[in-house]
Amino acid sequence: MSQPKYFTFSAEYLRDFTTQVFIHFGVPEKDAAQASAVLSKADVRGIDSHGAARLRTYVDMFKIGRINPKPNIKIIREKKSVATVDGDSGLGLVVGPKANEIAMEKAAQYGSGWVSVCNTNHYGIASYYSLKALERDMIGWSMTNSSKIVVPLWGAERRLGTNPIAIAFPGFKNPPIVIDLATSVVAFGKVEIAERQGKPIPEGWIIDGSGNLSTSPKDIYAGGLLPLGGTREMGGHKGYCLSSMVDILCCVLSGANWGPFAPPFAIFEETPKESVGKGIGHFFGAMEIDGFEDVDVFKKRIDHWIEVFRNTKPVPGRDAVLIPGDPEHEAEKIRTKEGIPVIQAVVDHLMQISKETGVPFNI
Amino acid sequence: MSQPKYFTFSAEYLRDFTTQVFIHFGVPEKDAAQASAVLSKADVRGIDSHGAARLRTYVDMFKIGRINPKPNIKIIREKKSVATVDGDSGLGLVVGPKANEIAMEKAAQYGSGWVSVCNTNHYGIASYYSLKALERDMIGWSMTNSSKIVVPLWGAERRLGTNPIAIAFPGFKNPPIVIDLATSVVAFGKVEIAERQGKPIPEGWIIDGSGNLSTSPKDIYAGGLLPLGGTREMGGHKGYCLSSMVDILCCVLSGANWGPFAPPFAIFEETPKESVGKGIGHFFGAMEIDGFEDVDVFKKRIDHWIEVFRNTKPVPGRDAVLIPGDPEHEAEKIRTKEGIPVIQAVVDHLMQISKETGVPFNI
Repeated sequence: MSQPKYFTFSAEYLRDFTTQVFIHFGVPEKDAAQASAVLSKADVRGIDSHGAARLRTYVDMFKIGRINPKPNIKIIREKKSVATVDGDSGLGLVVGPKANEIAMEKAAQYGSGWVSVCNTNHYGIASYYSLKALERDMIGWSMTNSSKIVVPLWGAERRLGTNPIAIAFPGFKNPPIVIDLATSVVAFGKVEIAERQGKPIPEGWIIDGSGNLSTSPKDIYAGGLLPLGGTREMGGHKGYCLSSMVDILCCVLSGANWGPFAPPFAIFEETPKESVGKGIGHFFGAMEIDGFEDVDVFKKRIDHWIEVFRNTKPVPGRDAVLIPGDPEHEAEKIRTKEGIPVIQAVVDHLMQISKETGVPFNI
Repeated sequence: MSQPKYFTFSAEYLRDFTTQVFIHFGVPEKDAAQASAVLSKADVRGIDSHGAARLRTYVDMFKIGRINPKPNIKIIREKKSVATVDGDSGLGLVVGPKANEIAMEKAAQYGSGWVSVCNTNHYGIASYYSLKALERDMIGWSMTNSSKIVVPLWGAERRLGTNPIAIAFPGFKNPPIVIDLATSVVAFGKVEIAERQGKPIPEGWIIDGSGNLSTSPKDIYAGGLLPLGGTREMGGHKGYCLSSMVDILCCVLSGANWGPFAPPFAIFEETPKESVGKGIGHFFGAMEIDGFEDVDVFKKRIDHWIEVFRNTKPVPGRDAVLIPGDPEHEAEKIRTKEGIPVIQAVVDHLMQISKETGVPFNI
């Protein structure tokens, strides 16, 4: 395989471009800037799949009227520390930050805040929201459902999304511990990459259309991804449980489309015939550290935790044990200085969007 | 292998016996009954490892003075919906229910309640606490740390316990969805069983003392269990993240001994030389369903969710997709009628405890 070609942009340049594109589709300036900040965080932290690369899909969704550029996001039910929010079909990148803000406001008032959200769509990286809570000395939780790709253990049909769970804890001198994991065994993207490279994948990643384990990447299209753990023997029932938990907290609780009914976030994916709610769902939580412990004492304990885990004797062939969030923190350090590398295919998309919207984009 | 010999007891008989044993060690009658109720729930739900089988260890811990029979369990810090509780070295089976009660009381007042607990020890099955929340139309969360047996991904030393996560959601006509999973790839008990049977174990369950993957069960003693996912390729970093989350919420937040410093719950296990807090830790959460959605509407949606998932086309060789909690619900139906089967080895322990305490126990 030849090396893919990269173009490098500053985070600001990409962010300004995406902001102008959102404005072009009728999103108010402040909301457009917010949405771009979420995408930019993914680019800066090295999660390339969730940054500017996703703009094409957001644009497509605007074009077919599936996203409301000026949503009336509101609390539809609440009791002190908890609430349900209706996103009015707005951009997930706008609904998510607003609902997360409500959770944090509740936490400031009641010690914790918990918000389940319906009528929304793709909200970017789950950890964006957990990181926001850290700015207020809170522990931030974030989850979302997505369209079906994962099979429940022993099931031969897709029933769940990759349904991520994120949570973050602040350090004192150390960067925060940032946990952000899809509850599928791997990302769909990893199967795609193996297919492009013509390589087999490990047993336990996917099943084929008949429900049998397969090591052939192309079988994913008729089959599905296994939940974290993979097979029963390796704990696949646990990943299924975690994915179900996310599905219920985000969707069954809020009145969004759960399980196989989640509408897709791509125009080429088939929309489920049946709907059981509104849009997809998110779930946010914020807990004031100060309600449990002196904030600095907690942060210093986290530093100690990080040091002990980092100093664990590594297995042969590895340099060290990583702390959750290490790779993203490392990417952030480099990309803040050196800019964001964007592959040719994504640059092509951005150029095309520039043509369609008239928002300038120059290599 | 010959079939192990079973003796059958009613749940009440076992519960009365354990209650009297706890009373013998100075536990007040009400607390003793509460502690036995937690153990009994495990027996009735088929989680044999966590019921009467554990009485031997609790007795040993009382004998060496590691458990305070009359703890002064108290809130040491709080802010409305959140609190930290000090268990005063009481039985986890007493501290856990009390702290969970505090979380539920807070939820009744503020919509949700979240309690981190230090200075406690083994609290039984995690799902006992989530099931209690269902009685009040709440969604119940429960987590605990335990002594080190799990290695962080790429680590060659034990750093974490099996750190379970439990959460439960009530159905309307259906039994509840009950999620309760250790964040290790498997339970230590499964490795022990393979060793007794002289069988190899799947690659990805354990590492040996040098940090290499091993399929020989006996290597667990110098090595450790891998986190859920197993290897990096299969998502072991995700299990490590989940286990870390539990460790931090239960211990770093409350001031308990986190990670490798957790004191063991067995007198034959070595106690860590260094202590970084008090006892082990738990974390409880309760959320009032009514704060998010009409309770019956939510329960009926859960019924719908259960029906859709149960009707998923199964993979070849399987009858159906299970709903989280199905096996335990099935066991509860049978054991409530037919009694609890107890293996010879556990009966021997109970007879021995009977001798030591003078509390009668008859086969």
